[in-house]
Amino acid sequence: MTAGLPLVGILGGMGPAATAEFYAKLIARTPAGRDQDHLRVAIWADPTVPDRVAAVLDGSTDPYPQILSGALKLRDLGATVIAIPCHTAHFFLPNLIEDTATPFVDMVAETASALVGHTGPIALLGTRGTLATGLYQSRLHDLDVVLPSEPAQQEVDRAIAAVKRADPQGAATHLDNALSALNASLTVLACTELPLAARYATTDTELLDPMDLLADAVIRACK
Amino acid sequence: MTAGLPLVGILGGMGPAATAEFYAKLIARTPAGRDQDHLRVAIWADPTVPDRVAAVLDGSTDPYPQILSGALKLRDLGATVIAIPCHTAHFFLPNLIEDTATPFVDMVAETASALVGHTGPIALLGTRGTLATGLYQSRLHDLDVVLPSEPAQQEVDRAIAAVKRADPQGAATHLDNALSALNASLTVLACTELPLAARYATTDTELLDPMDLLADAVIRACK
Repeated sequence: MTAGLPLVGILGGMGPAATAEFYAKLIARTPAGRDQDHLRVAIWADPTVPDRVAAVLDGSTDPYPQILSGALKLRDLGATVIAIPCHTAHFFLPNLIEDTATPFVDMVAETASALVGHTGPIALLGTRGTLATGLYQSRLHDLDVVLPSEPAQQEVDRAIAAVKRADPQGAATHLDNALSALNASLTVLACTELPLAARYATTDTELLDPMDLLADAVIRACK
Repeated sequence: MTAGLPLVGILGGMGPAATAEFYAKLIARTPAGRDQDHLRVAIWADPTVPDRVAAVLDGSTDPYPQILSGALKLRDLGATVIAIPCHTAHFFLPNLIEDTATPFVDMVAETASALVGHTGPIALLGTRGTLATGLYQSRLHDLDVVLPSEPAQQEVDRAIAAVKRADPQGAATHLDNALSALNASLTVLACTELPLAARYATTDTELLDPMDLLADAVIRACK
C-alpha cells in the first residue's frame, strides 16, 4: 500500500530538541492540504550517542559506531533519503554514505550553495567541533567568513548547552551576546540548537537557519 | 552500548504536525541537563494511513493494517513502550496491544485518570470519529461532559483541517468559535491537532492537552 513512496529518514537525537524542530520545519514547509499529502518519515533519535564535539576536538569516545547503527536502522526501514539535523555530525557524512549505501542530504553543502555570491561578512556560529573540523570554512573559502572570538564562542557554547537543558529563553541571552559581539549583517546558525534560542533573541540581524535548507532539500529529493 | 535502555516508540503521522508537537513536548518535559539524559526515541510517521475518522464513521478504507504495520516496525526496532499521539487511532488500541504484544501508553486512560473527581462541566472537543466511538464518554460517565452542537463541531472540524494544512493561526479562529459556543470552565482538547491551534486562540478558558499527560506517562514508563 505504500510501495514506491519515498521515506525520509531522520538521524536525530543530536540533540533531541533540534530533531523535533527539524521535523516540525519539514512538515510546515511541505506543500500539503491534508495528512495524506505529507511525507512518510522515520526518525531514529538516540541522544545517548557520545558527545560529537569532544570526539572531534580531543578524540574521546568515538560516536561513529552508534551513529552508524542508527543510520543502518533507517536504511533497513526503507529510507530513500536520510537527513541529519546536526552540523557537527556532518563530519561523519562521507563515512555514513559509504557504509550505508543510502542517499543523504548534506546540510553543509546546501548552506554553501545558498551563500554563493554573498557579499559582506558572514558570521559563522557553531560548536567548537564544527568550527575545528573546518566543515563550513572549507566550502565558504571565497566568502568573508567571520568566526567568534573566544569570549563570543563561550556565549555560543552556553547558548547551545541551555537549549539542551530545555532553557531556550536563557539560551537567547547568550546568543544575543554572541550576535552583538560579531555584529555581522548575516549570521549562519551552524548548530541545530541555535535556531531554538533565536526564537527568543532580540538582536537585529539576519539569521540563516541551515535546517530550513535541509528541509527544502529533503522535500525536493522526495519529488 | 545501549542494551537495556528504554526505547520510546511513537506511532505518528496522524497527523504529522501533532506528532512533531508531541515529540517536542516529550523532550521539554523530560528532566535532562544534556543530550545523554534524554530518552531514546523511534518515530514511525506514515501520514498516508487512510482517514481514521471516515473509517470509524462509515466503514470506508480500513486504516488498521497500515497502523499495525507501523506499530510492528517500532516493536521490531526494540520499542519498550509505544505512544500514539492521535485520539481517534486509540479506537484500535486493544487490537494493537494484542497484535504487537508490546506495552502502549493509553492517552485516553491517562486523561480519564487526571479528570477523576472534577466538578463542573467539561467540554470535549475531538474529531467526529473520536466522539462517535464514545472512547472518552465511556470513561468519563461520572462527569458532566458537554459535547459540541453541530455548528460548534463544524468549527472543530475546520480547526483540525486548518492545522493539517499548516495554518494553525487560521485554525485558532475556528477553535475560538467552538470554545465560545461551549463556554465550559474546562475543555479537553481530545484531538492532537487542536493544541497547535490553541497556541493562537484567545478565548479565556482552561484547556487540558492530553498529549501532556501522554508525555508524562511515557517518561514514567521509562523510569
